[in-house]
Amino acid sequence: MAEATPRILIQLDPDRHPSVFDRVVAVDAGIDHLFSYGGVRPEDVQALVHGAIFTRGFDQLKNTAIFIGGSDMEAGEALLEAVKASFFGPFQVSVMLDPNGSNTTAAAAVLRVLEGMNGSLADQDAAVLASTGPVGRRVAMLLAHLGARVRVGSRQHSKSAVLAESLGESTGKLFLPFQTSSDEALAEGLDGVEVVVAAGAAGVTLLPGHIVSKLQSLKVAVDLNAVSPAGIEGVKPQDKKIDKGGYLAWGALGVGSLKMKIHKAAIQRLFESNDQIIDALESFEIGRNIG
Amino acid sequence: MAEATPRILIQLDPDRHPSVFDRVVAVDAGIDHLFSYGGVRPEDVQALVHGAIFTRGFDQLKNTAIFIGGSDMEAGEALLEAVKASFFGPFQVSVMLDPNGSNTTAAAAVLRVLEGMNGSLADQDAAVLASTGPVGRRVAMLLAHLGARVRVGSRQHSKSAVLAESLGESTGKLFLPFQTSSDEALAEGLDGVEVVVAAGAAGVTLLPGHIVSKLQSLKVAVDLNAVSPAGIEGVKPQDKKIDKGGYLAWGALGVGSLKMKIHKAAIQRLFESNDQIIDALESFEIGRNIG
Amino acid sequence: MAEATPRILIQLDPDRHPSVFDRVVAVDAGIDHLFSYGGVRPEDVQALVHGAIFTRGFDQLKNTAIFIGGSDMEAGEALLEAVKASFFGPFQVSVMLDPNGSNTTAAAAVLRVLEGMNGSLADQDAAVLASTGPVGRRVAMLLAHLGARVRVGSRQHSKSAVLAESLGESTGKLFLPFQTSSDEALAEGLDGVEVVVAAGAAGVTLLPGHIVSKLQSLKVAVDLNAVSPAGIEGVKPQDKKIDKGGYLAWGALGVGSLKMKIHKAAIQRLFESNDQIIDALESFEIGRNIG
Repeated sequence: MAEATPRILIQLDPDRHPSVFDRVVAVDAGIDHLFSYGGVRPEDVQALVHGAIFTRGFDQLKNTAIFIGGSDMEAGEALLEAVKASFFGPFQVSVMLDPNGSNTTAAAAVLRVLEGMNGSLADQDAAVLASTGPVGRRVAMLLAHLGARVRVGSRQHSKSAVLAESLGESTGKLFLPFQTSSDEALAEGLDGVEVVVAAGAAGVTLLPGHIVSKLQSLKVAVDLNAVSPAGIEGVKPQDKKIDKGGYLAWGALGVGSLKMKIHKAAIQRLFESNDQIIDALESFEIGRNIG
Repeated sequence: MAEATPRILIQLDPDRHPSVFDRVVAVDAGIDHLFSYGGVRPEDVQALVHGAIFTRGFDQLKNTAIFIGGSDMEAGEALLEAVKASFFGPFQVSVMLDPNGSNTTAAAAVLRVLEGMNGSLADQDAAVLASTGPVGRRVAMLLAHLGARVRVGSRQHSKSAVLAESLGESTGKLFLPFQTSSDEALAEGLDGVEVVVAAGAAGVTLLPGHIVSKLQSLKVAVDLNAVSPAGIEGVKPQDKKIDKGGYLAWGALGVGSLKMKIHKAAIQRLFESNDQIIDALESFEIGRNIG
Repeated sequence: MAEATPRILIQLDPDRHPSVFDRVVAVDAGIDHLFSYGGVRPEDVQALVHGAIFTRGFDQLKNTAIFIGGSDMEAGEALLEAVKASFFGPFQVSVMLDPNGSNTTAAAAVLRVLEGMNGSLADQDAAVLASTGPVGRRVAMLLAHLGARVRVGSRQHSKSAVLAESLGESTGKLFLPFQTSSDEALAEGLDGVEVVVAAGAAGVTLLPGHIVSKLQSLKVAVDLNAVSPAGIEGVKPQDKKIDKGGYLAWGALGVGSLKMKIHKAAIQRLFESNDQIIDALESFEIGRNIG
């Protein structure tokens, strides 16, 4: 009855109710049918994936894809591993990982940084505040991927040290940990940076104005907190490449529209072949082509 | 890929399995995508609503809407409160409440009463049997809204008294409670009414024929019970404006087709703007325009 | 808004997550909306079925249908009984039963047998290995339906004896039980057969090559095991009417494409009227028309 093979997106979500946000974006990306699963555990994945790869003919596998979302990045990563382990040689379908929008948010934030830096981060110093969360960690990884020297900040030095080591191992780059629990430590940690990205919780100020004003070399500041008070004092949620007298600023809403574009484009990309894994880096590259 | 913004209806249902009935009507009302959630508790609502209001652009919010259904009106009302509390200023979507079809059934029943009364209920006496259930309560409210003096009957006088007071408080009108546990009380309670609506359980006779025959002033009787024996003896489920020798009668099926039309029209109405709350009164007004 | 009445398929699945496989096939069969329910128990069925039969007008009921799938045939059969018990006279919708693809797989296997036997099984001897599973049982039933004398094998003689009696009662035909636990018993049980179908678990050899080579009368062998080692030694999963020097062989993949065609055609058939029950025999007849 159907003319072209319908595009099916299978949404795997560890949360009890599969995310409405992820579903709306999937629909707006143009998928035809959305199979939404909530409460998905790694042990549930194999049967679901086999149902995806053993139904349509091999040449039609690109019209079925998997989106892993929800509110918990670690749970999502465990599902991604289970999905990959369920593939059967060339019998696979494309997969996107974006719990809590962490990958697409990090991609959009770093693209805005790149825009503010006129397209190059090579040999620049960049710092990430609240770097140990899923978004912060991915922002740090992407900044390093673009050639920046990246400092990762956290209230507890031990946490940022563990993160720096973990990121170093997975990327082969050097990450410098710093502590953000006192104004002195924060000012010292940020001394000389061209870029600051704040990836903290809603309504928590990570960087007070009196420290920002001493960052003489600062060129770009991105604050991903949409709820007042700001994560970087002086940056407003709706800021979009606003000159703050020396540096350019983006707020959460200023980054958000690009994030949505990346999310939609990434879902459309899933249906171009049956062998893609769209994680943080792939989301960034997709954004680079549309940004 | 999609041309117009697809219409998404989010079905929130407290029951474990979201209602098939509500889903079929949604599809037949022309929605493009239905996101069905079962086992929804008030504490689940905020995340779901935020996913609905923070995805599409503001001018596209009218293409997303929420339907609250299921088998339990009280549980549905709690979800509606949670939905409204999750809105964020102008960031909201339209919502319809119709658990067990109570609002649309009450609206259709009262529209039939109005039809039988040639369009006016002003200064008429109307009685509702089994008024303490969700449909009966709404029928009483709508009859009063149209200017009728409304009597609310229940087997236990205390229950109808509580209802009369509660309806009085919420509407500013006077409701008269009466008892239906004996033939004498029932006959006395119905004395002089022009309208009787029976909103009782399936297969329970609320009004015996020998009492109906003594209601000299009766002009319209509506029985919402579809299962034999009738709620009002002598009224058949398929009756649709049947002259019973003095009064006009409608049975459950005679009211049902209008109820379905109201349900579908109300869902379509949801997508006309992003700020509607369609509860009993709004369902009635929608029905009035199509009835 | 919609032009033609959309085709709705209601998927009832006893498993926690409704089968992706069944969903993909439903979409590819051309349905418009799929309502997928997981964790469905017999006691849940009535409300779901009533929602299906009491929404659309009688002449539109053929556009709603039910598919019962999942991984457990017994659980599926219990749901089918509950569905049928929920119908209300002529108010019913068509239903298909195919948990684990057992019905469509059995239908495809027997169609391949029929092809290999030039269209007739009358008075031929056929044996089913691993006959006590859901597929094997249905293969035996269909072979007998086509006039074959059917032997049903199992490792335990008591199990095959129970099956033979049960099949005999439900079909009015004679089934011969045999034991497969030793090479001697197996060779004796298969002596003189024209047809062997192996319906065993993945990766379990039911019929060793040295016994196959002694089956002088063998004309057709079908092995439904797709995972090495083969169920019938010498038959490969991709075999499709391969002459093995005396008999024709089909493997699991050689049967699989026909099985998928039957599954899709059966779903499309559901929407031709509102009163069909598509179980094993009906699946076979549908396959006969497309095979």
